Amino acid sequence: MKQITVLGSTGSIGTSVLELVRGAGGRFSLSCLTANRQIDKLAEQAREFRPQQVVIAEPSLYQPLKELLADTDIEVAAGPQALCDAAAAEADLVIAGIVGFAGLAPLMAAVGAGRKIALANKEALVVAGHIIMPALARTGAEILPVDSEHNAIFQCLEGNNSLDIEEIILTASGGPFRDLSADQLAGVTISQALAHPNWEMGRKITIDSATLMNKGLELIEAAWLFDQPRERLSAIIHPQSVVHGLVRFCDGSLLAQLGPADMKVPLSHALGWPERHSWPAERLDLAALGQLDFRPIDRQAFPCFDLACQVIGMPPAHAVMLNAANEEAVAAFLDGRLAFIDIAAVISAVMDQAEPQDCVELAAIREMDSQSRRLAANIIEKGKLTGAGS
Amino acid sequence: MKQITVLGSTGSIGTSVLELVRGAGGRFSLSCLTANRQIDKLAEQAREFRPQQVVIAEPSLYQPLKELLADTDIEVAAGPQALCDAAAAEADLVIAGIVGFAGLAPLMAAVGAGRKIALANKEALVVAGHIIMPALARTGAEILPVDSEHNAIFQCLEGNNSLDIEEIILTASGGPFRDLSADQLAGVTISQALAHPNWEMGRKITIDSATLMNKGLELIEAAWLFDQPRERLSAIIHPQSVVHGLVRFCDGSLLAQLGPADMKVPLSHALGWPERHSWPAERLDLAALGQLDFRPIDRQAFPCFDLACQVIGMPPAHAVMLNAANEEAVAAFLDGRLAFIDIAAVISAVMDQAEPQDCVELAAIREMDSQSRRLAANIIEKGKLTGAGS
Repeated sequence: MKQITVLGSTGSIGTSVLELVRGAGGRFSLSCLTANRQIDKLAEQAREFRPQQVVIAEPSLYQPLKELLADTDIEVAAGPQALCDAAAAEADLVIAGIVGFAGLAPLMAAVGAGRKIALANKEALVVAGHIIMPALARTGAEILPVDSEHNAIFQCLEGNNSLDIEEIILTASGGPFRDLSADQLAGVTISQALAHPNWEMGRKITIDSATLMNKGLELIEAAWLFDQPRERLSAIIHPQSVVHGLVRFCDGSLLAQLGPADMKVPLSHALGWPERHSWPAERLDLAALGQLDFRPIDRQAFPCFDLACQVIGMPPAHAVMLNAANEEAVAAFLDGRLAFIDIAAVISAVMDQAEPQDCVELAAIREMDSQSRRLAANIIEKGKLTGAGS
Repeated sequence: MKQITVLGSTGSIGTSVLELVRGAGGRFSLSCLTANRQIDKLAEQAREFRPQQVVIAEPSLYQPLKELLADTDIEVAAGPQALCDAAAAEADLVIAGIVGFAGLAPLMAAVGAGRKIALANKEALVVAGHIIMPALARTGAEILPVDSEHNAIFQCLEGNNSLDIEEIILTASGGPFRDLSADQLAGVTISQALAHPNWEMGRKITIDSATLMNKGLELIEAAWLFDQPRERLSAIIHPQSVVHGLVRFCDGSLLAQLGPADMKVPLSHALGWPERHSWPAERLDLAALGQLDFRPIDRQAFPCFDLACQVIGMPPAHAVMLNAANEEAVAAFLDGRLAFIDIAAVISAVMDQAEPQDCVELAAIREMDSQSRRLAANIIEKGKLTGAGS
């Protein structure tokens, strides 16, 4: 029986993992569940799955959670250090399902302890790939990517030698604006940007899909995960989101992974790996689908994609600036304080004006992140980036 | 340096292999080249590639070949036994590139000697899979499929457990008649049937592509190669011939292999395996291609496909009957003695009327094959199968 720790069990990845565990007929048991603030949901999950421990990130919620589980023998802990201790604790697999910057410290604790990690957090490798990847080699930790695109590449590479990779190709649905030109993008609204055609996701990542920044961040991640230079990484628009990724090898063969647009397929792969477990996901019927489309990314209409591509191979500070400026700009867009097409302009301005730091430690990354966010906030507040700002 | 024997070096597979060897910069050396009757071409190849031995299948051509190579130290042999000896002789890889029934005995010699074999012959596994596959396990021989579809499946399965296979899906271009209904097929001509849209191939296999018998024979082969029952094997029409095959796993993931319609891509894979060698084949550009189409096979319009599917899992004699009757019927169609739509009717009649033999040995397979051919010839001669015959 595989012992699993789920970091971020009340989020979208966490609840999907628990659904898979529920359907796996006793193949998994839970060591620990952690959440940020949702104690009611965490307590409910704990009652069903009976982990040895639960951890709540917010220290002030320790007592209320303890009371909710008073009639059980489940250990309760709280606070950032408890979260890192839980990430590092003995387990066969740690699900790194905490989104954003908050997921970085627990992930690094799991890496430090040499764990096998199913990684769903995007930001960690973007801002700290240069620290995490060398640490894996040192501690023996392993990362299994569960993002559908990276999981696809991982599957295509199994049984192959990474030295034979000629190109890694990620597919992008293209988001709600894939058919718009640069000019047409000037007037798009928040609700249009939030209407993703294929995937149900959080608001921030849905906007990142609309700007194609999401695909750029995924290429940065792929560069770290699969140790590839910028020229061996690319992305294409594939509106149906059926092919999730492809690897071209030096002999001209391509391998591709296909599947329904359901996060539980890559999650199930990571949970079972190196085995595959039967999972009654929707089966893809190619004959019924009929057609798969592919086209190049319009780099003029989607400058965020290019901004992200450019940081691959640059000193690590640049990816931190990019990520921080993007988060601030997306938040401002969702608040109605910034036009859609100004998201890229904010990022570009921050990357021009920020002072690159060394970023060799988590503290320096945090400082670089804060500096970039302050700069972005200033730029957004001043407005008048393209004249199209609201 | 890998030592290679090429059985059928003057044919389409053989010349492609030699082109790859020529481009591989000394990674391969040739043990033996064999041909059926083309002594001039064989001698020319021998002068360039300097194998230790050449074998000509036709005994009466021994002396002329010997004279052509009199000024070299290349050993010359002739006849069916010499062919089998060459197939069995020490080599790191034997390319089984002899087409048709004639390729069976040398293949079985290579299997008996425990060789690693790149298999391009289709008929061998169709008529003798029940003998060849158990022999592999006994002798330690290995088969690397080089047919583009089977090579695709082989690539998708690397690093995976065959117990996790839920479905093997081969793609079919659909041939020149993929858009025709059963009614429209009644009037097609020989030259229409020979105009394959995607692949340059011999006449027999091009007609098999037009009837979809080729895809049916490939499913029979796949059943043997990958040890799968009929219900786990399927085929779909994919006019672009870009995706060559897919494997669906029990967790809902599919892996696919894609590549240009160039036999040298799978051949290069088989030559290099378990490594991949750089090969400057045309690179597939999905964005430029734009669209990949898939649709179900019209089983009413293409009854040959169904006839082939039915023999999977039946006693081996039925596949021998199917193959023999098909060869006779296709030859009659190419001679103008049979209508296109009567090819299936001949096969069906032979399978109804032939006496199934035990087929546990090569001799019994030959006898079953001859009986089926005689029966097919009779049926064709009598004519009046559908009233549409010429």
